[in-house]
Amino acid sequence: MEPGIISLAGGNPDLTALPLNELGQAASRLISAQGAEVLQYGAGSGILPLREELAQLMSTAGVASGPEDILITAGSQLGIELVTAMLCDPGDVILAEAPTYVGAISTFMGLEVAVEHVMCDEDGLIPAELERRITELRAAGRIVKALYTIPNFNNPSGITLSAERRPIIAQICRDAGITVIEDDPYGLVRFEGEHIPAIRSFDDSVIYLGSMSKIFSPGIRIGWLTAPAAVRERLQLLSESAVIHASMLSQHLALAYLRDFDWRATLSKTIDRYRERADALLRALPAALPAGSTWTGPSGGFFVWATLPDGVSADELFDLAVEEGVVFIPGSGFFADGSGARNLRFSFSLEAPDRIREGLVRLGRATARLSSR
Amino acid sequence: MEPGIISLAGGNPDLTALPLNELGQAASRLISAQGAEVLQYGAGSGILPLREELAQLMSTAGVASGPEDILITAGSQLGIELVTAMLCDPGDVILAEAPTYVGAISTFMGLEVAVEHVMCDEDGLIPAELERRITELRAAGRIVKALYTIPNFNNPSGITLSAERRPIIAQICRDAGITVIEDDPYGLVRFEGEHIPAIRSFDDSVIYLGSMSKIFSPGIRIGWLTAPAAVRERLQLLSESAVIHASMLSQHLALAYLRDFDWRATLSKTIDRYRERADALLRALPAALPAGSTWTGPSGGFFVWATLPDGVSADELFDLAVEEGVVFIPGSGFFADGSGARNLRFSFSLEAPDRIREGLVRLGRATARLSSR
Repeated sequence: MEPGIISLAGGNPDLTALPLNELGQAASRLISAQGAEVLQYGAGSGILPLREELAQLMSTAGVASGPEDILITAGSQLGIELVTAMLCDPGDVILAEAPTYVGAISTFMGLEVAVEHVMCDEDGLIPAELERRITELRAAGRIVKALYTIPNFNNPSGITLSAERRPIIAQICRDAGITVIEDDPYGLVRFEGEHIPAIRSFDDSVIYLGSMSKIFSPGIRIGWLTAPAAVRERLQLLSESAVIHASMLSQHLALAYLRDFDWRATLSKTIDRYRERADALLRALPAALPAGSTWTGPSGGFFVWATLPDGVSADELFDLAVEEGVVFIPGSGFFADGSGARNLRFSFSLEAPDRIREGLVRLGRATARLSSR
Repeated sequence: MEPGIISLAGGNPDLTALPLNELGQAASRLISAQGAEVLQYGAGSGILPLREELAQLMSTAGVASGPEDILITAGSQLGIELVTAMLCDPGDVILAEAPTYVGAISTFMGLEVAVEHVMCDEDGLIPAELERRITELRAAGRIVKALYTIPNFNNPSGITLSAERRPIIAQICRDAGITVIEDDPYGLVRFEGEHIPAIRSFDDSVIYLGSMSKIFSPGIRIGWLTAPAAVRERLQLLSESAVIHASMLSQHLALAYLRDFDWRATLSKTIDRYRERADALLRALPAALPAGSTWTGPSGGFFVWATLPDGVSADELFDLAVEEGVVFIPGSGFFADGSGARNLRFSFSLEAPDRIREGLVRLGRATARLSSR
């Protein structure tokens, strides 16, 4: 047995393809030549040339935003918080995929906003379910303010909202007077198929959240959002109240990376790694999970989401898996309503294929012990 | 007349003494040698070696905190927001100096927390006034949760809370069950006299906020707070919900600066500049402001606060000053209660003495025009 715990738990990107020496030199030049700007206070909106680069970057997702529509955030997590604070009062409802990002649930709950889930299938949010939930919640007197969705390679499910459904989801929300919060950190991390236009491409009132975390670096904490002008302005005031602005050093490094490096080639190398790892995981899962389990087959992102058969507990499997030397994340954290007891999230972003295979051998042992109980 | 507007408005630190080439090289080394850490997700508490440096740094202020008591924030502004969100419900009251930091007022109001001012004299908060306000507000059914104070070189007043009053203020708040939020971005920027122990040094329940902005760089957005363990833990969860963590690159650069550079010598050079500029401002003010004006004489920080005689409007003077080519900030923004109409804040942190003198010649012309109306 290989030593050490094998982690299929975290959502860290693989940074090994980054040209660290060149990035270091870029940072050095930024500080020595532009230190008076890079180390000083900056504008609440973020620096203009980075907003210009991001506007261009979003065209891959079919989002037609100018730099004036963009607010650079101190990470996309802050975008979620600012938008929620702007839209919601305590007790209001935000709809979200079942399951959804644990960090968003935590932000919503911190602001005393209730999360209500919408059922998904292999094509993502089910439009009829979205309509049903809105009607049902409103009939019960609840105030539904927004739909929070991760349409590409959802965290944790790995599921992508189909192209056909995107304009329909936009239309349902527009008709219901509900703001769509489109969180898209993984959209460019696609290892199969073509890019699908963002929901934002069908409706300019959608608030679209982007992130440098999965295409460059999460450590610099740079995200952005694009929203209608009046909304963007209110969000900027909230951002200034919270953090004044995102790190200027981080913004300038992100700008240098997008402008002066062949970042798409670097990302492509990293995506090749993710594809291999996802393959390794998906091939090994049938032998590792209890018979009757099912799982998603993502074409991008970091995660595979598994569902155990009736009566099998993800928490119990987790405890045994830890003993065997492999970890994943049990599913209940990805729901606000207590479900997820038979679910687990595997991340394939960080471990090499051999380690993933070894991890699933260990998981297989845990499964065998669970079955023999 | 010299060209261009002379700004005595902003609160930007002077960064010209920073060793930019060496800092650039430090950043380069960080990324090339430790990029896998510096560009990756990090701990919600902030990196340990930086917390160790900050614990040591706070000993100048008499604060005995270990690294485990410290939370690194994405700027001290975020510290204000997190603490307010933790302590207050909408409608609660936070007491603050009259006048106080405009960014804090904006954060409080954004969270629907009411700001009530406490009168100050040249020694800062008046203890009897603090007691009177607490009693008065509570008698009126208001819920008073905290005292927000900038005890050293207050922004905007430049006033420092005297050493004698600090334990008294701590005691009054302890007795009243009110949390002290001690915001100390300027404490180390002292150009006259001895350092005075922080309020936190008299009472471990005080939440102390520190900042790298005035001793190193505001652009990297690194602050910190120190609080009792249970409180610090709650604040960390709120910080994770808001931003996950402060930029790792910024944290590592701040660490390198505190650990590997003679930052106290650099700060000392910068403080010499601030002293000269404050002198230039204070010498020129008598001839520039209307007869009967008064102003503070700070021994540190960035600001001088002036009060115009009865019947003279700071806004009117401001409009004329802009026409003459000099700007400052009219006082009303630094109060939550509509006062400040006869006040103005001058910053001496960024312009050279000659420019300050020229600025005040221009202000003198504006004053003359105002008087002749």
